[in-house]
Amino acid sequence: MSNLLREEELGQWRRTHYSSEINSSLNDKEVIIMGWVSAIRNHGNIMFIMIRDRYGDIQVIAKKSECTDELLEQIRQIKEHTTLAIRGKIRSQEKAPTGAEVIPFELKVFSMSKKAAPFMVQDKTSVGIDTRLDLRAIDLRRNILQRIFHIRHATLDAIREFLVKQRFTEINTPKMIATATEGGAALFPIFYYDREAFLAQSPQLYKEQLTMAFENVFEIGPIFRAEPSRTNRHLSEAISLDVEKAFVDYTDMMALLEGILLHIMASIKEKKKDDLQNLNLDLPTVELPFPKYSYSSIINQLQNAGERIRWGDDLSPHTMKNMSDDKMNGFYFITDWPTSLKPFYVKPKYTGDEMICESFDLMYRSLEVSSGSTRINRKDELLQRMKKQGLNTQAFDYHIRVFDYGVPPHAGFGLGLERLLMAITRIDNIRDLTLYPRDIDRLVP
Amino acid sequence: MSNLLREEELGQWRRTHYSSEINSSLNDKEVIIMGWVSAIRNHGNIMFIMIRDRYGDIQVIAKKSECTDELLEQIRQIKEHTTLAIRGKIRSQEKAPTGAEVIPFELKVFSMSKKAAPFMVQDKTSVGIDTRLDLRAIDLRRNILQRIFHIRHATLDAIREFLVKQRFTEINTPKMIATATEGGAALFPIFYYDREAFLAQSPQLYKEQLTMAFENVFEIGPIFRAEPSRTNRHLSEAISLDVEKAFVDYTDMMALLEGILLHIMASIKEKKKDDLQNLNLDLPTVELPFPKYSYSSIINQLQNAGERIRWGDDLSPHTMKNMSDDKMNGFYFITDWPTSLKPFYVKPKYTGDEMICESFDLMYRSLEVSSGSTRINRKDELLQRMKKQGLNTQAFDYHIRVFDYGVPPHAGFGLGLERLLMAITRIDNIRDLTLYPRDIDRLVP
Repeated sequence: MSNLLREEELGQWRRTHYSSEINSSLNDKEVIIMGWVSAIRNHGNIMFIMIRDRYGDIQVIAKKSECTDELLEQIRQIKEHTTLAIRGKIRSQEKAPTGAEVIPFELKVFSMSKKAAPFMVQDKTSVGIDTRLDLRAIDLRRNILQRIFHIRHATLDAIREFLVKQRFTEINTPKMIATATEGGAALFPIFYYDREAFLAQSPQLYKEQLTMAFENVFEIGPIFRAEPSRTNRHLSEAISLDVEKAFVDYTDMMALLEGILLHIMASIKEKKKDDLQNLNLDLPTVELPFPKYSYSSIINQLQNAGERIRWGDDLSPHTMKNMSDDKMNGFYFITDWPTSLKPFYVKPKYTGDEMICESFDLMYRSLEVSSGSTRINRKDELLQRMKKQGLNTQAFDYHIRVFDYGVPPHAGFGLGLERLLMAITRIDNIRDLTLYPRDIDRLVP
Repeated sequence: MSNLLREEELGQWRRTHYSSEINSSLNDKEVIIMGWVSAIRNHGNIMFIMIRDRYGDIQVIAKKSECTDELLEQIRQIKEHTTLAIRGKIRSQEKAPTGAEVIPFELKVFSMSKKAAPFMVQDKTSVGIDTRLDLRAIDLRRNILQRIFHIRHATLDAIREFLVKQRFTEINTPKMIATATEGGAALFPIFYYDREAFLAQSPQLYKEQLTMAFENVFEIGPIFRAEPSRTNRHLSEAISLDVEKAFVDYTDMMALLEGILLHIMASIKEKKKDDLQNLNLDLPTVELPFPKYSYSSIINQLQNAGERIRWGDDLSPHTMKNMSDDKMNGFYFITDWPTSLKPFYVKPKYTGDEMICESFDLMYRSLEVSSGSTRINRKDELLQRMKKQGLNTQAFDYHIRVFDYGVPPHAGFGLGLERLLMAITRIDNIRDLTLYPRDIDRLVP
């Protein structure tokens, strides 16, 4: 009876029901189910196999009294992760995950599992992340990651839904660029035909330009940063939500961000109830308005607590972790940063102190999720700031020239999708929130 | 009276109405409008300025009898493209574009136009595309491009709406990769820290892997191809819709594509009626099912017409242009291509002839819009095909290894968004359908 199993073609077979559609009301109905084997229990004359599809598991029960010997023997030879189709009949069964089970008539194996995976699909915590990432496609079959990427999908959907309703136009800006956008940050160089070019670290200058023509724009796309550090919150390639809007300032952008976050949480609660329950996850509370702390007030507070920090120093995650304020337990803004800490296109406060700029970071606890500001919309101001930051203004000629044609006042922000998902899911390694993460050590799969 | 105009800050001013909201029912209402000056007519004691925002134009009328001398003189100094706000009063006016005009009380210039643009915003055809691309942000203020990018936005929206309803999960796959995906095509090399890497020419292998975990996936994102040619239908960086689905074959994918196109056209007709009218554009007719021609039948037809072409040769756009068949006037499929013309992951027909594979191109007239196929889902078959195409299988180890764990039968396609927009808008230079195009000659802006 050995080698009864062989791999077959899909041919004319098609799935009739997903796991989510299998229930006791279909009692006696003939179905074709498809998926991969997530678990097998063999009790000799009775075997249970769980077939998992994108919605969950279907219990298949094979008894000596109900199946041919050949079919039983085939099922006995199946291993976890094998991908197959089963033609069979539904029988209601209270104990089964969907309230019904399938009695198999016929089996079609599409692709056999040839090895045992180094982790179990049922595991919540598992082997080290590198072992998992080396077999990422199989790792992603794990229940916890399935749920998390459902939530990721819902988050993207909610963001777009909100922005489209608010009259934003979706844009795509080039990822291959001639010059560094913001100066300072490490870029990946490219060979662009016979020239040197770089991968864009953000759509910054493009989205600003596009407010001239479209006023309100957004992009969701990859950004590239040659991060030299190994941390749990940095990636070399991440997905960024970039928003830019004409005729507003940074206070409007903070309000917009609040609106987006409120809508995301409401959408996930409504559409991914099941996933939240399964993960036993409470979403972060979003109460508007978010607390706002000026950079200066935070420096004061830190100095009063005895920290050795000076006005003008950056606020590290480590520093923020030590902030004791209870209100910093959720989302909050840090506003009005020193101009010297922000890129050249950020607008200094127009009344009074040029040392402070119209800027904010959206934080979740000690995690920076988003960063935004009012931008400079006049050429002379922009040139002055670029020179102060030691940038070669000639290299930005392609950008500066549009400022001769009436760039509107505008403001915007960039938001790291994976960072936001860290806040939403409370997962502390950003790599788990990326399908195929890239960092200084990892370029495959 | 000179230099009465100076640039001012946005401050507390905010727009109260978009152009689309200005109408005669608001007669006498005080409003603040914002935008840029798309046209000025000066008749001495009466001046018209058109203020354009993202929805269209608002007519502002300044008469000696209704405005202060100072305001009149300010308006006299304004140039096209200047960005400003006007506080004023609405008066119904049949001849104005929105059925009402604005009588100005106060003017706030945000950003003056310092130069005359080398093209007019009203122009349909204009100066050479390179002149326009050098000032792309201003070029995009032109009416025709405004409308086209509204349609682009609606197209993206419709695609996502359709796929999400069809239970597809949105994914993002890495753009920095270790090895060439499909072999052959020209790639852009990157310095990835201390290693060599490449920009992904498609999400192909990743989306295939992800059918293991998510079954139905799609991505809309950039792809990179170091195209050496200068044509009107190639870009170095394009936006690709990539779709992959488990437990189906290429015939299901053709049906899915038909469904997507039907939904796109219906959505644009419903949501962008105004833009279609303004562009005087009839969308391509989409009648299901699309005609399907096998590759072999096309070769036969060409040979009968006396063309010097052999079975196994590729079909060039030039060749297809010469096809006389009336049915090739819209969308159609060319199916069942020679296996040798398609990448290694495309599945040969499982019955009979290995020379032919389960593949299709979606064409619009002579333009290839999309390309899809059933994929190989078994390791031995995949290795065999890779070796036949002379690929180094070791370089693909990160991909091949997942085939030990039950890859489902799957099929998918890639669709070039800008190509599709060429079909939809009948615009014949792909650069015009890209905000900031990249090609062998162009890396800026």
